[in-house]
Amino acid sequence: MRQVTLYTQHDWVDPAAVTGQWAVVIDTFRATTTITAALQNGCLKVLPVMHTPDGLALKQQLLTKDPGTPVLLGGERHTQIIPGYDCGNSPLEYTPAVVGGKVLVLSTTNGTKAALKAVRAGRVFLACLNNCTAVAQKLLGGSADISFICAGTRGKFSLEDVITAGGVLHALSRMGGRFHPDDAAYMAQKMFVAYSADIDALLCQTAHYNTMRSHGLTGDLAYCQQIDSTAAVPVYSGGAIQLAADT
Amino acid sequence: MRQVTLYTQHDWVDPAAVTGQWAVVIDTFRATTTITAALQNGCLKVLPVMHTPDGLALKQQLLTKDPGTPVLLGGERHTQIIPGYDCGNSPLEYTPAVVGGKVLVLSTTNGTKAALKAVRAGRVFLACLNNCTAVAQKLLGGSADISFICAGTRGKFSLEDVITAGGVLHALSRMGGRFHPDDAAYMAQKMFVAYSADIDALLCQTAHYNTMRSHGLTGDLAYCQQIDSTAAVPVYSGGAIQLAADT
Repeated sequence: MRQVTLYTQHDWVDPAAVTGQWAVVIDTFRATTTITAALQNGCLKVLPVMHTPDGLALKQQLLTKDPGTPVLLGGERHTQIIPGYDCGNSPLEYTPAVVGGKVLVLSTTNGTKAALKAVRAGRVFLACLNNCTAVAQKLLGGSADISFICAGTRGKFSLEDVITAGGVLHALSRMGGRFHPDDAAYMAQKMFVAYSADIDALLCQTAHYNTMRSHGLTGDLAYCQQIDSTAAVPVYSGGAIQLAADT
Repeated sequence: MRQVTLYTQHDWVDPAAVTGQWAVVIDTFRATTTITAALQNGCLKVLPVMHTPDGLALKQQLLTKDPGTPVLLGGERHTQIIPGYDCGNSPLEYTPAVVGGKVLVLSTTNGTKAALKAVRAGRVFLACLNNCTAVAQKLLGGSADISFICAGTRGKFSLEDVITAGGVLHALSRMGGRFHPDDAAYMAQKMFVAYSADIDALLCQTAHYNTMRSHGLTGDLAYCQQIDSTAAVPVYSGGAIQLAADT
């Protein structure tokens, strides 16, 4: 039976343990939601970087190589736009008009760290509440063990990430996928089953939600909490994130 | 507001972070359940040790100091009684006839490791499903921040420990206790609210439950899953565990 492991935060992932597995990286508020939105809206690929200077350097490098490269630089620090950057971290910014046909260099410390933990995985998908069922459909196409790598927030457990993993597992289960979850993955699925009917009522008591609300990001929260609003599934491979085939 | 932190497994606890807090140590299958049962049934105190030779050495040391000390040596490895030991790890063994008026030296690797993470805490309580509300009543008597330290099982998240923490928090909340939980503690409480009406139906899918069932320990499982069956609250202090006053 296919084993499913859930890491509630990326800090605790040993990349060696994920070798050959299929990995699902989750940073629902907001990196994986924003990347999914950008790709869904026509972005060619997303190049994630860890630090803001890396973003500026990579954009310069791409333009030096080919001055015609349509590069967009996105990211923020403490909800403020970064000097020299084109966009912030909100999924709402990445409309087809803004991101269509472009390469997005995205600075996201936590999301990038989480994705880097999966470098030895056979395939790496990015999940958010928006694409739970679509990610489950991709997982259905394989037989490797699965690891969910939740980003968490500043080294802490983040419920929005865990319940997203639960949503993917619940969809996988509904589609007939058979798997053996560890206790954390099983709990994530049980939380989704019990509370997904009103996800805002659940998450409005959590830490990251309240940080975002205090910064006025209520539009982002509403967007990030839409379950199964898209069929777009980002795949991370060789440092770049692109849309999975057939979505 | 009183902050509540939940560590889903003891491996991730920095003892310095718990300094001055009140700690609740949980190893529901079976260390904290067994210790609660022993103290409820008249055991004078429990001395936890990490390794089986430590147990034999401590028993010898106590008898050398005072040959009349009524010492009982408990513990097991791989569900087998240890040579030279008097009892195993089942709460069902520690009846008043067996443990009344005695000092129990208990070998429990994981539970002891979890308790040692709380050495810098102001007070340390031991919780299991049997004493959720009783532990909450003790917590109501203080104002320090609270850390729940779940033992987990071989370095993995164990749902029975997490939902026990949720049971304590739910009871604290029902009694009017006000606190600010981190996401993990909040989730634990939400899991308890959703699934405690049939705790066996929830836990029968989990890892440690199934290991115990495969060893024929169904009586232990039934015992460990009784919610609020006792008012006994073990307190850990100076290397010994005794009943809290007024229980």
